[in-house]
Amino acid sequence: MPGKDQTIKVGLGSFGAKGRVALIGAGPGDPGLLTVRATELLSRAEVVFYDALVDPAILDWCRPDADLVPVGKRGGARSTAQAAIEREMIAAAQAGRFVVRLKGGDPFVFGRGGEEVLALAGAGIPVEVLPGVSSVMAAPALAGIPLTHRGLAASFAVPTARRADGALHDFRDLAGVDTLVVMMVVKSLTAVADQLMAAGRSADCPAAVVEAASTPRQRVVRGVLRTIARRSRAARVAGPALLVVGEVVTALTGAAVEGLGVEALEEIQAVAL
Amino acid sequence: MPGKDQTIKVGLGSFGAKGRVALIGAGPGDPGLLTVRATELLSRAEVVFYDALVDPAILDWCRPDADLVPVGKRGGARSTAQAAIEREMIAAAQAGRFVVRLKGGDPFVFGRGGEEVLALAGAGIPVEVLPGVSSVMAAPALAGIPLTHRGLAASFAVPTARRADGALHDFRDLAGVDTLVVMMVVKSLTAVADQLMAAGRSADCPAAVVEAASTPRQRVVRGVLRTIARRSRAARVAGPALLVVGEVVTALTGAAVEGLGVEALEEIQAVAL
Repeated sequence: MPGKDQTIKVGLGSFGAKGRVALIGAGPGDPGLLTVRATELLSRAEVVFYDALVDPAILDWCRPDADLVPVGKRGGARSTAQAAIEREMIAAAQAGRFVVRLKGGDPFVFGRGGEEVLALAGAGIPVEVLPGVSSVMAAPALAGIPLTHRGLAASFAVPTARRADGALHDFRDLAGVDTLVVMMVVKSLTAVADQLMAAGRSADCPAAVVEAASTPRQRVVRGVLRTIARRSRAARVAGPALLVVGEVVTALTGAAVEGLGVEALEEIQAVAL
Repeated sequence: MPGKDQTIKVGLGSFGAKGRVALIGAGPGDPGLLTVRATELLSRAEVVFYDALVDPAILDWCRPDADLVPVGKRGGARSTAQAAIEREMIAAAQAGRFVVRLKGGDPFVFGRGGEEVLALAGAGIPVEVLPGVSSVMAAPALAGIPLTHRGLAASFAVPTARRADGALHDFRDLAGVDTLVVMMVVKSLTAVADQLMAAGRSADCPAAVVEAASTPRQRVVRGVLRTIARRSRAARVAGPALLVVGEVVTALTGAAVEGLGVEALEEIQAVAL
């Protein structure tokens, strides 16, 4: 027998059973970016705790009698504290219900999914994790930006603008990476761009801000490191948004790449700066 | 009017039209990780060029009369050269057919999607990009490993083991990132682990190799940087596989996280080393 840290098995095939929680990535916004399995689990769920970032159309997959509980950190409703979300999920699962926790993007990328798993596991509740389309990839892709591109970029890194303690990420650590995707960047854009230039990135390095990727509000502001913060302010980018920095930003310029076939996206106005 | 590099619009809503190509991410393997929109586009496609990594069950979404063209770089069939794939897609689109290019994972992450977009755009063919679930996130998630975790990791970086020219990635550039996900790592595992330790990562840093994520062949080998290459060799990991390095690897240890509900995964044998 192997030691406990040698080899593990994953996947026990008990999805949809009662008294369990499935942690599901809902993708960046557009309901078409939900996975097939996510729709199956949603259609069986008895209780669904969902982030405010999740498009309401995604909840159309739910049973008519399912309890739909908004717990988002954004939007009109007051956000629910993380501990309260975890408490409610535990209570629902302990009552024998099949619980879905629907999170924007991927549940294990900047989503506190790991914390929720630990809380549930601590209460003895089995947890299943279903990956989703992350805005880390989807937002650049829908802006026509590949994260890697032969000859231009063989690596990418994904920091948040600020760490949990509020301090700005030290981008000198990432100076050598080809493509940078900086998450949750709106309020720190000037500081991040300055820090990147101080860390050795060229002021003329192509940069883009992608706002509300895959939703009808999606917008892309392009520039270079020196200009991107000013342009985003001028365009009144409000978030959620991420910053992409690197030669890949212009790799497909002029190639007329299109994003999701969301009709409302046709109405996006070019912003004169 | 803005200059051409200031603000662009994306998404023209012409998905599924003839004489076009949709570049679709099929996810890491399990058909349940296909997106809803991918199933819609597959069900309309007249020609589908697909990678060998794509699960055959995914092609069940296609029309009975669709031409299904394998162009994968793996598997029994001889691989098709990139230029030939591009030529065939262009010819099919110019013949007025609706073409789907189905790629493993996400089309813009280590998938040469950008090159295909440029080739198609060069021939005047409109291209749509549909993001998919990337193994960058899915493989760690299905192994119970969050890429970020409050207090442990606020950033991750994703290099390939080797650059296009065959040289090993210089991991000193990434020494400060919290979590590393090294793609296409099987043949270079010893060199990568050595390089990471030379770049300052502790020999005792938790590490895991995830093989064939989300497929019935999925396996996870765990260890630390000093041991992971030896353990993977002993377990005869053959790929496709990626390496995860960082404190997140043990963040949920003991939490009994489960992956996709794939029954075959129950049969995975623990590998005694």
